[in-house]
Order: sequence, then C-alpha cells, then structure tokens
Amino acid sequence: MVTLKSVAFTSLPTAVAFSQLHNAIAVSVCLSIVAYYATYRFIPLVSKVFIKHGRCGKDRLKKDGPVIAESMGLIAGVVYLASMCMFIPVPFLPFFRVGAEPSASSNSAGAVIPLFPLDMLAQYLAALLSLFSMLFLGFVDDVVDIKWRVKIWMPLFACIPLLMVYFVTYGVTHVVVPIPFRGFWGLGHILDLGIFYYAYMAALCIFSTNAINIIAGLNGVEGIQCFIIGTALVINNICVVLTTPYPLNKDRHLFSMYFLLPFLGVTIGYLRHNWYPARCFGGDTYVYFAGMTFAVVGIMGVFTKTLLLFMFPQIFNFLYSCPQLFGFVECPRHRMPQLNEKTGLVEPTRVSLEKTRTPGLLMLRFLELFSLVDIERDPKTKSMLSCNNLTLINLLLVKWGPASEAQATVRVGLTQALFCLIGFGMRYGLAFLFYRQKEAGSGHVEL
Amino acid sequence: MVTLKSVAFTSLPTAVAFSQLHNAIAVSVCLSIVAYYATYRFIPLVSKVFIKHGRCGKDRLKKDGPVIAESMGLIAGVVYLASMCMFIPVPFLPFFRVGAEPSASSNSAGAVIPLFPLDMLAQYLAALLSLFSMLFLGFVDDVVDIKWRVKIWMPLFACIPLLMVYFVTYGVTHVVVPIPFRGFWGLGHILDLGIFYYAYMAALCIFSTNAINIIAGLNGVEGIQCFIIGTALVINNICVVLTTPYPLNKDRHLFSMYFLLPFLGVTIGYLRHNWYPARCFGGDTYVYFAGMTFAVVGIMGVFTKTLLLFMFPQIFNFLYSCPQLFGFVECPRHRMPQLNEKTGLVEPTRVSLEKTRTPGLLMLRFLELFSLVDIERDPKTKSMLSCNNLTLINLLLVKWGPASEAQATVRVGLTQALFCLIGFGMRYGLAFLFYRQKEAGSGHVEL
Repeated sequence: MVTLKSVAFTSLPTAVAFSQLHNAIAVSVCLSIVAYYATYRFIPLVSKVFIKHGRCGKDRLKKDGPVIAESMGLIAGVVYLASMCMFIPVPFLPFFRVGAEPSASSNSAGAVIPLFPLDMLAQYLAALLSLFSMLFLGFVDDVVDIKWRVKIWMPLFACIPLLMVYFVTYGVTHVVVPIPFRGFWGLGHILDLGIFYYAYMAALCIFSTNAINIIAGLNGVEGIQCFIIGTALVINNICVVLTTPYPLNKDRHLFSMYFLLPFLGVTIGYLRHNWYPARCFGGDTYVYFAGMTFAVVGIMGVFTKTLLLFMFPQIFNFLYSCPQLFGFVECPRHRMPQLNEKTGLVEPTRVSLEKTRTPGLLMLRFLELFSLVDIERDPKTKSMLSCNNLTLINLLLVKWGPASEAQATVRVGLTQALFCLIGFGMRYGLAFLFYRQKEAGSGHVEL
Repeated sequence: MVTLKSVAFTSLPTAVAFSQLHNAIAVSVCLSIVAYYATYRFIPLVSKVFIKHGRCGKDRLKKDGPVIAESMGLIAGVVYLASMCMFIPVPFLPFFRVGAEPSASSNSAGAVIPLFPLDMLAQYLAALLSLFSMLFLGFVDDVVDIKWRVKIWMPLFACIPLLMVYFVTYGVTHVVVPIPFRGFWGLGHILDLGIFYYAYMAALCIFSTNAINIIAGLNGVEGIQCFIIGTALVINNICVVLTTPYPLNKDRHLFSMYFLLPFLGVTIGYLRHNWYPARCFGGDTYVYFAGMTFAVVGIMGVFTKTLLLFMFPQIFNFLYSCPQLFGFVECPRHRMPQLNEKTGLVEPTRVSLEKTRTPGLLMLRFLELFSLVDIERDPKTKSMLSCNNLTLINLLLVKWGPASEAQATVRVGLTQALFCLIGFGMRYGLAFLFYRQKEAGSGHVEL
C-alpha cells in the first residue's frame, strides 16, 4: 500500500476548526438568494443591451420565431463568480483569527505552523479560475462561433489551473480498487493511477461541459437538468456532511456545497427567464459554465464517481449520439425536435438513412433490439429509410409521443430526476458490494 | 509600533527554498518567448474570424479608413493567462519535494509545518483571477459597449479576489511614514492604514486600468507605453532581487517578475501587429488587461509607490484631462488627434471654448501659466476661442508640431521612457530623504 503523504499534509489543519464553520453555510444560503435575485433582475436589463448589439437569435420552436437575447449565461456566470469572490473570506475567517495568535504562528525551530488551510484557499481560487476560463471561452464561442472540433477541447484549457493546483496541493492520485477486482493483476486495495488520474480529471471536465451542451434546444432544458443535478449533489453533500466521521471528507463536501448553492441560485434566476416561453437564451456560455461547475465540484470534493452516477442521462445521450457524432449515421447541424405548426406540438426530427453504410445500419439495428430507436422501413424491401435523430430529447418524444415544448422539457427533467434517484440508490445502497464501509467515507481516496 | 504578525506568518517558509528558484526565471523567460510567438501567430488567424463576425472597426487616422479586427487584446490576454496557468507548478515544485518528505510534514504535536508557500500560491491564483475578470469585462465592454459611468468601476469588481486573498494571507496594511512627517499628529514611523489600505489598493486598480485607456487612439500607443512600463518594472525587480538582503522582499519581486515577463512577451507579439500601420486593434480588452496586470503586480510585490512613479505620464494625462472629464471644458466623444489628409501628418484636435464658463477658463489659464495648453484667442476681445483637447498626445503634438502617426507614437514612448528614468532616479536616489535604508528594502512594509 502506498503512503498517503498528501493526506497527512492536508487533513490535520483542516480538521481543527472546520467543525465551527456551519455558519458559513448560512452565509452561503443568503448569498445564493441574493445571487438568484440579482440574476433574475439583471437578465431583462442586459437582454435589451444585447439585442441592441445583435447578440440575439430566433426561437425556432415558436410559430412567429421571436427574437430573443442570447448568451444570458453570461449574467448567471458573472453574478455567480462575483458571489463566490465575495464569499472568499467567509470559510477562512475562523482560521484567520486562530492564525493571528502569535503563539500559533511559529515554533522554536523557526518553521511556521499555519492553522490556516491555505491549501483549501488555493483550491477554491483554482476552481474559480477554471470556472472563469470556461465562462469566458463559452462567451467567446457565442460571439465568434468557434468550430466544434476546436471547442470540444476548450475545457481542457480551462481545467489547467484546477489540475495544476490539485497537483501542488492534494496530489492524491490513488483510487480504492473495487472488491471484486482485488487480487487480479496483482492489484492491492489501493491503486496509484499517477498521471492517468489527471487525464481522468481532464476527461471529466471535457465530458461534463460538452454533455450538457448536447441535451439542448428546448426552452429551459439546459437549466432544468443543471438544477436537478445540482440539487442531487447538494443533497448528497448534506448526507455526507451529517454522517461522515472523517473531518477531511466533511470539509470537502462543505466546500462543494459552497460552490453549489450559489450555482442553484443563479440557475433558478436564469430558468425563470429561460422557461417556456423563453425570454432569453443561455447560449454556450451557460452550458459550459454549468458543466464546468459540476466537474470542478466533483474534483474538489473527490466524488467524481457520484457525479457520474447523477449524470447518467448525459452519458446515455452521449453514447446514444455516437453513431451520428462519429459519422456512421448522417448528422445534420441541428438535431433538436421541430414544431408541428398545426398541432402546436413538438415532434422528433428524423434523419434519412439512404447514404448510411453497414456499420451505421448495424448500430441502429442494435439500438432497435432495445427499442431505443424508431426506424421507418420500406414496406416492400424492408430496407431502412429513416430514423429519429439520436438524442435523448427525440427518444423521449418517440416513446411518449409529441408534446408541447414545456411538457417535453418537463419529461427531460423527470428523466433526470429519476436517474438521480437511481444514482442515490446505487451510491448508498450498492456501494458496499464494491467498497468496505470504512474506505467509502474516509475521504482520502477517490470514491 | 504595531506587531507585524503577518510578516512572521509568511516570511519564514518562503525564505527556505526560494533562493534555489532562479531556474524558475529561466522557465519564465522561455514561456515568455513562446507566449510572444503564440500571440504573434494567432492574431492574424483570429483577426479573420473576428472580422467575419463583425468585431472590427475603421482606422480613422488613415486616408482610406481600412477595416481592422478589434479586441485583439483577447488573444494577448488568453495566451498570457494560459502561460501563467501552465507556469503554476514551476515556482512551487521545489517546495513540493521538500514538503513531501515525511519528516517535514508534521511534528509531534500533530500540527503541520508546511514548507510549501501556499500563501504565495493563493496570491498567484487570486492575481490570475483578477486579471481574468478584467480581461473578461474588457471583452464584454468591447462587445456590448458599456457606458463609461459603469465601466470606470469595473476594475473594482475585478480586484475583489485579489483584495480578499490579500486580506486572508498577507493582511499587511502598514506603511512606513516618510521621515519628514514623523512626529506630526502623533505619527510613529509605522502607520496602520487598516481599511484605507484596501481602499487605496482598489483605487490603484481603478486608476491603473483606466489610465492606460485614456492615452489611446494612435496605432501602437497603448502597447508601447505598456511595454516601457513593464520593462521598467522588470528592471526594478532585477535590481531588488540582486541587492536586497531580505528574502521576503526578494520573493515578492521574483513573483512580480513571473507575471511581467510573459506580459512583455504577449505585448511584443501584439505590438508587431498593432504598430503603424496597424493590422489589428487591441480594444478595451487589451488596455484593461494590461492596466490590471500592473496593478496586480504592484500590489502583490508591495511596490505600488514605485509603480506610480513609473506611471507618471498616465497620472499627468489624467490630471490634465480633468477639466474635460469633469465637464468644466466641453468634452467631445473622441479627443484623439486627427489626420491632415494633405500633409499626411497627425495634428492635435481642438475644442471650442464658447460655452466654457469661468471655472473652466480659470483652469485653462492656470495650465497656460506652465505652457501646457495652446489657446486660440479672439484678436480683438482677447477672449478664448478654442484650445487643444487636453490629452498628453495632443500636448506632445502641440509642443513638437504635427508628425506622422508612427512618430507621434514614438514621442509618447520616449516621454514614457524619460519618466521611467526619472522614476528610477527618485526611487533609488531620493528615497533616502523619506525612508531609512533599512526600512526601504525590508519588504514587510509598503514602499
């Protein structure tokens, strides 16, 4: 078993006073309410300015195609980051007082004993830096429309500060090996992934930001999934904070909560304007910023596996989209559902399969096995003519039939909520199959 | 005399290994060269995309008014911040190795002795966060054209992370009282300014960002002043690093150099495109980002007074502009010089004094006393008819006569260089009149 030096390095000072910090949560809640209100009030004001400067787009799923301000994720993001900057001293103030006592500040050897968790502060700032980078790149993308081959890698750039600071502070790259795999290939019960752990974190950032972006196109659909994932993460944080006996684990989940509460605040503020019928669009600015928030929170709180459980619909949507994303099946520029002007309902869009070759057809047949695709066949030759565009939103419309736009969004929200519940079940119900209880909560290994 | 507790808190660990860190400078120099090259190469590529999306403007001082991409400070800023993010581990790596030795990581009392200067890391990250905020706000301003009454306060928002982290890490708010003032009003030789010190730092950020913005309008003029100020600061850093006996002071100047070298890199890359005849404009994005870099470096390195010495032309330009900025003399939207299409030379612009009331006229007469304004008078009544717009650039054109645009820019550059030299003289030649040598370099009080 490897020595967990980094744990010794970080756990002790944080254990000292973090238990006194529950009022920081109260401040965070108040700040989140202010952030909600600020977002809610600022969006209409800034919308006008944005429309004036041409930062607007048509709402395609409305009969008259009204023109609406784009990139309003900018307001949510700026309000969020301003709140988080104002919050910087709050969780650290008690340490500041302790650290200020002369007796605590240096010992006879001349070395300093800081009770101040500067490593936490560094991570907090690095997280903000990554979020800011992503918000910024999202806005640049909205303004100059970066090619998707380039923009898919943008989160890699944005996560650099986070990973660099993870490297110089935590540096924990060990994972607990699931019980069934222990003993295979000489695996102990802790495995040091080293550089691969950083690659995993970077991949998580890329996945998380892009995954939310590809379930989009209906009023409020980005906001509702982010709201539900965020709420699930906060509930998970509360469960851990209340039950864990490990101070370090508690601290991490507290910090993750400090990041999530204002995020929920600005998301609600934004959703109130973005909900059907939308009076603003979030743009890539919002989805990138939201996706990065989840990645950052998962990495800082060391609960990336839990995060991935809650993001199951996004993972499914990504895998489901793969035949189109990787060119096996034709991929039109927009795969969002379309409005049937007669019924006023939203219907799934379809893609022609005329040019699709054998690998693509095999993939579709495989999906058909699980009733995950609606294929139209030639009545005579039985050859495939068309299928629905391979996105979760279209699939829900295929399964449950056409719906109003608001209903379609609610369906996505319900699906998200359902999978978050299942995620909770797996996280708390089944984890014992893979990890012993003691390991699961000790907080010094990735769960 | 107050206890300098924060000094004890930060100085010792940093003293341990920073002397080993000179290779970090070598890495920084290499990174700056890469940053220069990246900026130089990316600007033409991105220019095309920006022009395509309408992010461009006319060059008014050219006969044909060519259309040029705006906001190219974005490239400089993004390359700079990417470099700084990549650089994060470099100055901290030696500490990482020291901190990793088990013997150094905890003592018998269970408290941790980090040799790792996490406070420095926190400041580094906070500085990046402030820079990012300012770059971001600068770009938003370029895109949606924020009113100047609002945008003048934007740096206040951007400096929040820096001040918050200053508060929780350094917390030093003491200044050394200049010798002539000691004994007055019960002043000792150290004065704790408390909250006013934070107000001073915030004011410095606001001044620094806006000051560079108001010496603008000629090709390359923003870049050249930033280049010269940056170079002067680097030379000052080198002087201090080589001569100071105080490790803390040395560390701070080293850190300031880490921030300035890549800044000079991207500035040169940007200047090569922005120099007459310009193929790109920096926009508010560049000037805000550059101004904030100086403020951040001055605050982190605790040499804000030296910074202000080097920024004398900007201070002068601000004071000189006050009669127009505060409405005593009419202030047109653009006060930049104009092109005389016949001679091809740039000439100062003038403003009518017909509506100017007594206070404005008195101010102009005061400036006239020092030959700082060119006033046109009615030959009969001797009443004032017009004067040059009150900016440094116009003043130089009045004093040295019309010039080509490139020459006019060089004049501003020379003026800047001259005042940097004078600044050096005052910093090293006259400081002894105000401070004793020991205080001047001790690094634990604002110089």
